[in-house]
Amino acid sequence: MTSVFDLLKKHLAQHIRFDDVQFEVFCKRFKVKQTSRNEILLFGSEICPYMYFVNRGCLRIYMLDEAGRESTRFFVFEGKFGTAFPSFILQEPSMAYIQSLEPSELLYINYPDLQELINKFPNFEKAYLINLEMEYISSIKRIESLISMDANSRYQLLLKDSPALIKRLPSKIIADYLGISQETLSRLKSKK
Amino acid sequence: MTSVFDLLKKHLAQHIRFDDVQFEVFCKRFKVKQTSRNEILLFGSEICPYMYFVNRGCLRIYMLDEAGRESTRFFVFEGKFGTAFPSFILQEPSMAYIQSLEPSELLYINYPDLQELINKFPNFEKAYLINLEMEYISSIKRIESLISMDANSRYQLLLKDSPALIKRLPSKIIADYLGISQETLSRLKSKK
Repeated sequence: MTSVFDLLKKHLAQHIRFDDVQFEVFCKRFKVKQTSRNEILLFGSEICPYMYFVNRGCLRIYMLDEAGRESTRFFVFEGKFGTAFPSFILQEPSMAYIQSLEPSELLYINYPDLQELINKFPNFEKAYLINLEMEYISSIKRIESLISMDANSRYQLLLKDSPALIKRLPSKIIADYLGISQETLSRLKSKK
Repeated sequence: MTSVFDLLKKHLAQHIRFDDVQFEVFCKRFKVKQTSRNEILLFGSEICPYMYFVNRGCLRIYMLDEAGRESTRFFVFEGKFGTAFPSFILQEPSMAYIQSLEPSELLYINYPDLQELINKFPNFEKAYLINLEMEYISSIKRIESLISMDANSRYQLLLKDSPALIKRLPSKIIADYLGISQETLSRLKSKK
Protein backbone atom coordinates (compact mmCIF):
# COMPACT_ATOMS: atom_id res chain seq x y z
CA MET A 1 0.00 0.00 0.00
CA THR A 2 1.53 3.29 -1.00
CA SER A 3 1.53 6.20 1.39
CA VAL A 4 2.23 9.91 1.12
CA PHE A 5 5.22 9.29 3.42
CA ASP A 6 6.99 6.68 1.22
CA LEU A 7 9.51 9.10 -0.28
CA LEU A 8 10.34 10.58 3.14
CA LYS A 9 10.94 7.05 4.45
CA LYS A 10 13.28 6.32 1.54
CA HIS A 11 15.14 9.59 2.11
CA LEU A 12 15.66 8.98 5.84
CA ALA A 13 16.60 5.32 5.26
CA GLN A 14 19.61 6.49 3.21
CA HIS A 15 21.09 7.91 6.40
CA ILE A 16 19.69 6.13 9.47
CA ARG A 17 17.95 3.04 10.78
CA PHE A 18 14.49 3.28 12.31
CA ASP A 19 11.57 0.96 12.92
CA ASP A 20 7.96 1.37 11.79
CA VAL A 21 6.76 2.53 15.21
CA GLN A 22 9.37 5.27 15.26
CA PHE A 23 8.62 6.27 11.69
CA GLU A 24 4.94 6.66 12.67
CA VAL A 25 6.03 9.20 15.30
CA PHE A 26 8.10 11.11 12.73
CA CYS A 27 5.21 11.19 10.23
CA LYS A 28 2.71 12.52 12.75
CA ARG A 29 4.71 15.77 12.85
CA PHE A 30 4.43 16.34 9.09
CA LYS A 31 1.38 17.69 7.28
CA VAL A 32 0.60 17.37 3.56
CA LYS A 33 -0.08 20.22 1.15
CA GLN A 34 -0.96 20.34 -2.55
CA THR A 35 0.13 23.50 -4.33
CA SER A 36 -0.62 24.98 -7.73
CA ARG A 37 1.84 26.26 -10.35
CA ASN A 38 3.68 29.41 -9.23
CA GLU A 39 1.94 29.49 -5.85
CA ILE A 40 3.86 31.59 -3.33
CA LEU A 41 4.37 29.74 -0.03
CA LEU A 42 6.39 32.44 1.71
CA PHE A 43 6.65 36.15 1.02
CA GLY A 44 9.83 38.10 1.77
CA SER A 45 9.81 39.74 5.24
CA GLU A 46 7.62 36.96 6.70
CA ILE A 47 9.14 34.57 9.22
CA CYS A 48 9.37 31.17 7.55
CA PRO A 49 7.33 28.72 9.68
CA TYR A 50 8.04 25.47 7.83
CA MET A 51 10.68 23.10 6.56
CA TYR A 52 9.36 21.44 3.38
CA PHE A 53 9.97 17.99 1.90
CA VAL A 54 9.08 17.74 -1.80
CA ASN A 55 7.07 14.61 -2.69
CA ARG A 56 6.32 15.81 -6.21
CA GLY A 57 7.03 19.03 -8.09
CA CYS A 58 9.60 21.69 -7.39
CA LEU A 59 10.20 24.65 -5.09
CA ARG A 60 12.18 27.76 -5.89
CA ILE A 61 13.79 29.92 -3.22
CA TYR A 62 14.39 33.39 -4.63
CA MET A 63 14.91 37.01 -3.79
CA LEU A 64 13.02 40.00 -5.16
CA ASP A 65 14.49 43.50 -5.17
CA GLU A 66 12.66 46.81 -5.09
CA ALA A 67 12.80 47.08 -8.86
CA GLY A 68 10.94 43.74 -9.14
CA ARG A 69 14.02 41.83 -10.29
CA GLU A 70 14.13 38.19 -9.15
CA SER A 71 17.31 36.27 -8.20
CA THR A 72 17.07 32.52 -7.70
CA ARG A 73 18.97 31.13 -4.72
CA PHE A 74 18.12 27.41 -4.96
CA PHE A 75 15.70 24.85 -6.37
CA VAL A 76 14.32 21.96 -4.30
CA PHE A 77 13.23 18.88 -6.20
CA GLU A 78 11.49 15.58 -5.34
CA GLY A 79 12.94 13.72 -2.38
CA LYS A 80 14.71 16.76 -0.90
CA PHE A 81 14.20 19.02 2.09
CA GLY A 82 14.25 22.76 1.60
CA THR A 83 13.14 26.07 3.05
CA ALA A 84 14.17 29.71 3.45
CA PHE A 85 16.78 28.33 5.82
CA PRO A 86 18.16 31.45 7.59
CA SER A 87 14.64 32.67 8.38
CA PHE A 88 13.44 29.23 9.50
CA ILE A 89 16.43 28.52 11.78
CA LEU A 90 16.81 32.02 13.25
CA GLN A 91 13.02 32.59 13.24
CA GLU A 92 13.52 36.05 11.82
CA PRO A 93 11.99 37.78 8.75
CA SER A 94 13.00 36.16 5.48
CA MET A 95 15.10 37.78 2.76
CA ALA A 96 13.73 35.17 0.35
CA TYR A 97 10.44 34.02 -1.15
CA ILE A 98 9.39 30.37 -1.59
CA GLN A 99 7.37 29.43 -4.67
CA SER A 100 6.15 26.10 -6.02
CA LEU A 101 7.20 26.35 -9.67
CA GLU A 102 5.02 23.37 -10.62
CA PRO A 103 1.85 21.86 -9.11
CA SER A 104 3.49 20.13 -6.15
CA GLU A 105 2.82 17.77 -3.27
CA LEU A 106 4.70 18.82 -0.16
CA LEU A 107 5.19 17.54 3.36
CA TYR A 108 5.89 20.27 5.88
CA ILE A 109 6.87 20.49 9.54
CA ASN A 110 6.96 23.52 11.80
CA TYR A 111 10.01 24.71 13.73
CA PRO A 112 9.06 23.49 17.26
CA ASP A 113 8.06 20.04 15.95
CA LEU A 114 11.31 19.66 13.99
CA GLN A 115 13.32 20.68 17.07
CA GLU A 116 11.40 18.14 19.14
CA LEU A 117 12.19 15.30 16.71
CA ILE A 118 15.86 16.34 16.65
CA ASN A 119 16.06 16.53 20.44
CA LYS A 120 14.11 13.33 21.16
CA PHE A 121 15.46 10.97 18.52
CA PRO A 122 19.25 10.67 18.09
CA ASN A 123 18.78 8.89 14.75
CA PHE A 124 16.54 11.67 13.43
CA GLU A 125 19.15 14.18 14.60
CA LYS A 126 21.80 12.24 12.68
CA ALA A 127 19.68 12.28 9.50
CA TYR A 128 19.13 16.03 9.93
CA LEU A 129 22.87 16.57 10.43
CA ILE A 130 23.89 14.59 7.33
CA ASN A 131 21.21 16.36 5.30
CA LEU A 132 22.58 19.70 6.51
CA GLU A 133 26.14 18.73 5.54
CA MET A 134 24.97 17.87 2.01
CA GLU A 135 22.95 21.09 1.65
CA TYR A 136 25.91 23.11 2.91
CA ILE A 137 28.15 21.40 0.35
CA SER A 138 25.62 22.25 -2.41
CA SER A 139 25.63 25.88 -1.34
CA ILE A 140 29.44 25.98 -1.40
CA LYS A 141 29.42 24.54 -4.91
CA ARG A 142 26.92 27.24 -5.91
CA ILE A 143 29.26 29.90 -4.48
CA GLU A 144 32.18 28.36 -6.37
CA SER A 145 30.29 28.47 -9.65
CA LEU A 146 29.24 32.09 -9.02
CA ILE A 147 32.73 33.36 -8.16
CA SER A 148 34.94 31.37 -10.47
CA MET A 149 33.00 30.43 -13.62
CA ASP A 150 31.81 32.30 -16.68
CA ALA A 151 28.28 31.87 -18.07
CA ASN A 152 29.29 29.03 -20.40
CA SER A 153 31.05 27.01 -17.66
CA ARG A 154 28.08 27.52 -15.31
CA TYR A 155 25.74 26.27 -18.01
CA GLN A 156 27.95 23.26 -18.79
CA LEU A 157 28.08 22.37 -15.08
CA LEU A 158 24.29 22.53 -14.80
CA LEU A 159 23.99 20.41 -17.96
CA LYS A 160 26.31 17.81 -16.39
CA ASP A 161 24.88 17.81 -12.84
CA SER A 162 21.19 18.46 -13.55
CA PRO A 163 20.27 17.82 -17.21
CA ALA A 164 16.62 17.19 -16.27
CA LEU A 165 16.39 20.65 -14.73
CA ILE A 166 17.20 22.34 -18.04
CA LYS A 167 14.43 20.44 -19.84
CA ARG A 168 11.96 20.89 -17.04
CA LEU A 169 12.10 24.53 -16.02
CA PRO A 170 11.26 27.67 -18.04
CA SER A 171 14.26 29.34 -19.73
CA LYS A 172 13.60 32.57 -17.83
CA ILE A 173 14.06 30.77 -14.50
CA ILE A 174 17.21 28.92 -15.61
CA ALA A 175 18.78 32.10 -17.00
CA ASP A 176 18.06 33.83 -13.70
CA TYR A 177 19.59 30.94 -11.73
CA LEU A 178 22.74 31.09 -13.87
CA GLY A 179 22.85 34.87 -13.56
CA ILE A 180 22.74 35.42 -17.34
CA SER A 181 20.25 36.87 -19.83
CA GLN A 182 17.74 34.67 -21.67
CA GLU A 183 19.50 35.58 -24.92
CA THR A 184 22.84 34.30 -23.61
CA LEU A 185 21.13 31.11 -22.44
CA SER A 186 19.56 30.51 -25.89
CA ARG A 187 22.97 31.02 -27.49
CA LEU A 188 24.59 28.52 -25.09
CA LYS A 189 21.77 26.00 -25.66
CA SER A 190 22.09 26.19 -29.45
CA LYS A 191 25.90 25.90 -29.33
CA LYS A 192 25.71 22.49 -27.64
CA MET B 1 46.20 29.82 33.85
CA THR B 2 45.61 30.38 30.16
CA SER B 3 45.62 27.46 27.77
CA VAL B 4 45.75 27.10 24.00
CA PHE B 5 42.24 25.61 24.27
CA ASP B 6 40.56 28.59 26.02
CA LEU B 7 38.96 30.00 22.87
CA LEU B 8 37.67 26.57 21.81
CA LYS B 9 36.12 26.16 25.26
CA LYS B 10 34.42 29.56 24.97
CA HIS B 11 33.13 28.68 21.49
CA LEU B 12 31.67 25.33 22.57
CA ALA B 13 30.19 26.81 25.75
CA GLN B 14 28.02 29.11 23.60
CA HIS B 15 26.13 26.05 22.42
CA ILE B 16 26.43 23.20 24.94
CA ARG B 17 27.21 22.25 28.52
CA PHE B 18 30.20 20.07 29.33
CA ASP B 19 32.42 19.41 32.34
CA ASP B 20 36.20 19.73 32.60
CA VAL B 21 36.78 15.97 32.30
CA GLN B 22 34.79 15.84 29.07
CA PHE B 23 36.53 18.94 27.72
CA GLU B 24 39.88 17.22 28.36
CA VAL B 25 38.71 14.37 26.08
CA PHE B 26 37.69 16.84 23.35
CA CYS B 27 41.04 18.67 23.56
CA LYS B 28 43.10 15.50 23.26
CA ARG B 29 41.80 15.14 19.69
CA PHE B 30 43.04 18.57 18.61
CA LYS B 31 46.61 19.45 17.71
CA VAL B 32 48.16 22.95 17.61
CA LYS B 33 49.92 24.52 14.64
CA GLN B 34 51.63 27.89 14.14
CA THR B 35 51.59 29.14 10.55
CA SER B 36 53.36 31.97 8.77
CA ARG B 37 51.86 34.69 6.55
CA ASN B 38 50.46 33.31 3.28
CA GLU B 39 51.35 29.71 4.16
CA ILE B 40 49.35 27.21 2.10
CA LEU B 41 47.74 24.53 4.30
CA LEU B 42 45.93 22.68 1.52
CA PHE B 43 46.56 22.63 -2.22
CA GLY B 44 43.74 22.10 -4.71
CA SER B 45 43.25 18.43 -5.70
CA GLU B 46 44.49 17.19 -2.29
CA ILE B 47 41.99 15.54 0.06
CA CYS B 48 41.50 17.91 2.99
CA PRO B 49 42.48 15.99 6.14
CA TYR B 50 41.62 18.58 8.82
CA MET B 51 38.94 20.78 10.28
CA TYR B 52 40.61 23.93 11.66
CA PHE B 53 39.71 26.17 14.57
CA VAL B 54 41.37 29.60 14.44
CA ASN B 55 42.88 30.72 17.75
CA ARG B 56 44.66 33.72 16.22
CA GLY B 57 45.02 34.98 12.66
CA CYS B 58 42.91 34.26 9.62
CA LEU B 59 42.37 31.54 7.02
CA ARG B 60 41.26 32.05 3.44
CA ILE B 61 39.52 29.34 1.42
CA TYR B 62 39.95 30.07 -2.28
CA MET B 63 39.97 28.61 -5.74
CA LEU B 64 42.67 28.96 -8.38
CA ASP B 65 41.93 28.52 -12.07
CA GLU B 66 44.31 27.40 -14.81
CA ALA B 67 45.08 31.01 -15.72
CA GLY B 68 46.27 31.59 -12.14
CA ARG B 69 43.22 33.69 -11.20
CA GLU B 70 42.15 33.37 -7.55
CA SER B 71 38.54 33.47 -6.29
CA THR B 72 37.94 33.73 -2.55
CA ARG B 73 35.17 31.50 -1.19
CA PHE B 74 35.32 32.34 2.55
CA PHE B 75 37.46 33.77 5.34
CA VAL B 76 37.75 32.12 8.76
CA PHE B 77 38.64 34.40 11.67
CA GLU B 78 39.47 33.92 15.38
CA GLY B 79 37.04 31.73 17.30
CA LYS B 80 35.59 30.02 14.21
CA PHE B 81 35.83 26.58 12.65
CA GLY B 82 36.60 26.28 8.97
CA THR B 83 37.97 23.98 6.29
CA ALA B 84 37.59 23.06 2.62
CA PHE B 85 34.29 21.56 3.71
CA PRO B 86 33.17 19.47 0.69
CA SER B 87 36.57 17.79 0.46
CA PHE B 88 36.79 17.21 4.21
CA ILE B 89 33.28 15.73 4.57
CA LEU B 90 33.25 13.66 1.37
CA GLN B 91 36.97 12.84 1.71
CA GLU B 92 37.49 13.58 -1.96
CA PRO B 93 39.99 15.87 -3.77
CA SER B 94 39.47 19.55 -2.97
CA MET B 95 38.42 22.23 -5.46
CA ALA B 96 39.77 24.81 -3.01
CA TYR B 97 43.03 25.87 -1.39
CA ILE B 98 43.44 26.84 2.27
CA GLN B 99 45.89 29.61 3.15
CA SER B 100 46.74 31.38 6.40
CA LEU B 101 46.61 35.03 5.34
CA GLU B 102 48.33 36.14 8.55
CA PRO B 103 50.73 34.41 10.97
CA SER B 104 48.15 32.22 12.74
CA GLU B 105 47.67 29.82 15.61
CA LEU B 106 45.37 26.99 14.68
CA LEU B 107 43.85 23.96 16.36
CA TYR B 108 43.12 21.11 13.98
CA ILE B 109 41.39 17.74 14.13
CA ASN B 110 41.36 14.96 11.57
CA TYR B 111 38.22 13.43 10.03
CA PRO B 112 38.10 10.13 11.99
CA ASP B 113 38.69 11.90 15.32
CA LEU B 114 35.98 14.47 14.63
CA GLN B 115 33.54 11.69 13.69
CA GLU B 116 34.41 9.87 16.89
CA LEU B 117 33.67 12.93 19.05
CA ILE B 118 30.38 13.47 17.18
CA ASN B 119 29.34 9.84 17.58
CA LYS B 120 30.43 9.43 21.21
CA PHE B 121 29.29 12.72 22.72
CA PRO B 122 25.71 13.92 22.06
CA ASN B 123 26.58 17.40 23.34
CA PHE B 124 29.57 17.66 20.99
CA GLU B 125 27.30 16.52 18.15
CA LYS B 126 24.84 19.27 19.10
CA ALA B 127 27.61 21.91 19.05
CA TYR B 128 28.74 20.61 15.64
CA LEU B 129 25.17 20.74 14.33
CA ILE B 130 24.53 24.32 15.49
CA ASN B 131 27.90 25.39 14.09
CA LEU B 132 26.95 23.79 10.77
CA GLU B 133 23.59 25.61 10.71
CA MET B 134 25.35 28.94 11.24
CA GLU B 135 27.98 28.23 8.56
CA TYR B 136 25.25 27.16 6.13
CA ILE B 137 23.38 30.41 6.84
CA SER B 138 26.60 32.40 6.17
CA SER B 139 27.02 30.61 2.85
CA ILE B 140 23.41 31.38 1.86
CA LYS B 141 23.98 35.05 2.69
CA ARG B 142 27.11 34.96 0.52
CA ILE B 143 25.04 33.48 -2.35
CA GLU B 144 22.40 36.18 -1.86
CA SER B 145 24.99 38.93 -2.05
CA LEU B 146 26.53 37.39 -5.18
CA ILE B 147 23.24 36.95 -7.05
CA SER B 148 21.30 40.02 -6.04
CA MET B 149 23.69 42.85 -5.21
CA ASP B 150 25.88 45.16 -7.22
CA ALA B 151 29.48 45.92 -6.21
CA ASN B 152 28.50 48.94 -4.12
CA SER B 153 25.81 47.07 -2.11
CA ARG B 154 28.21 44.14 -1.53
CA TYR B 155 30.82 46.55 -0.24
CA GLN B 156 28.30 48.36 2.01
CA LEU B 157 27.15 44.99 3.44
CA LEU B 158 30.74 43.98 4.21
CA LEU B 159 31.35 47.38 5.80
CA LYS B 160 28.27 46.86 8.00
CA ASP B 161 28.83 43.18 8.92
CA SER B 162 32.63 43.02 9.03
CA PRO B 163 34.21 46.49 9.26
CA ALA B 164 37.35 45.03 10.87
CA LEU B 165 37.88 42.81 7.85
CA ILE B 166 38.19 45.79 5.51
CA LYS B 167 40.87 47.38 7.70
CA ARG B 168 42.70 44.13 8.28
CA LEU B 169 43.04 42.43 4.90
CA PRO B 170 44.91 43.56 1.77
CA SER B 171 42.76 45.41 -0.80
CA LYS B 172 43.58 42.80 -3.43
CA ILE B 173 42.02 40.05 -1.28
CA ILE B 174 38.90 42.09 -0.41
CA ALA B 175 38.34 43.06 -4.05
CA ASP B 176 38.60 39.40 -5.02
CA TYR B 177 36.13 38.40 -2.27
CA LEU B 178 33.66 41.01 -3.50
CA GLY B 179 34.20 39.97 -7.12
CA ILE B 180 35.28 43.45 -8.19
CA SER B 181 38.50 45.06 -9.42
CA GLN B 182 40.91 46.79 -7.03
CA GLU B 183 40.16 50.07 -8.85
CA THR B 184 36.42 49.72 -8.17
CA LEU B 185 37.17 48.94 -4.52
CA SER B 186 39.35 52.07 -4.13
CA ARG B 187 36.56 54.14 -5.68
CA LEU B 188 33.98 52.65 -3.26
CA LYS B 189 36.31 53.20 -0.28
CA SER B 190 36.91 56.86 -1.14
CA LYS B 191 33.18 57.52 -1.71
CA LYS B 192 32.32 56.53 1.87
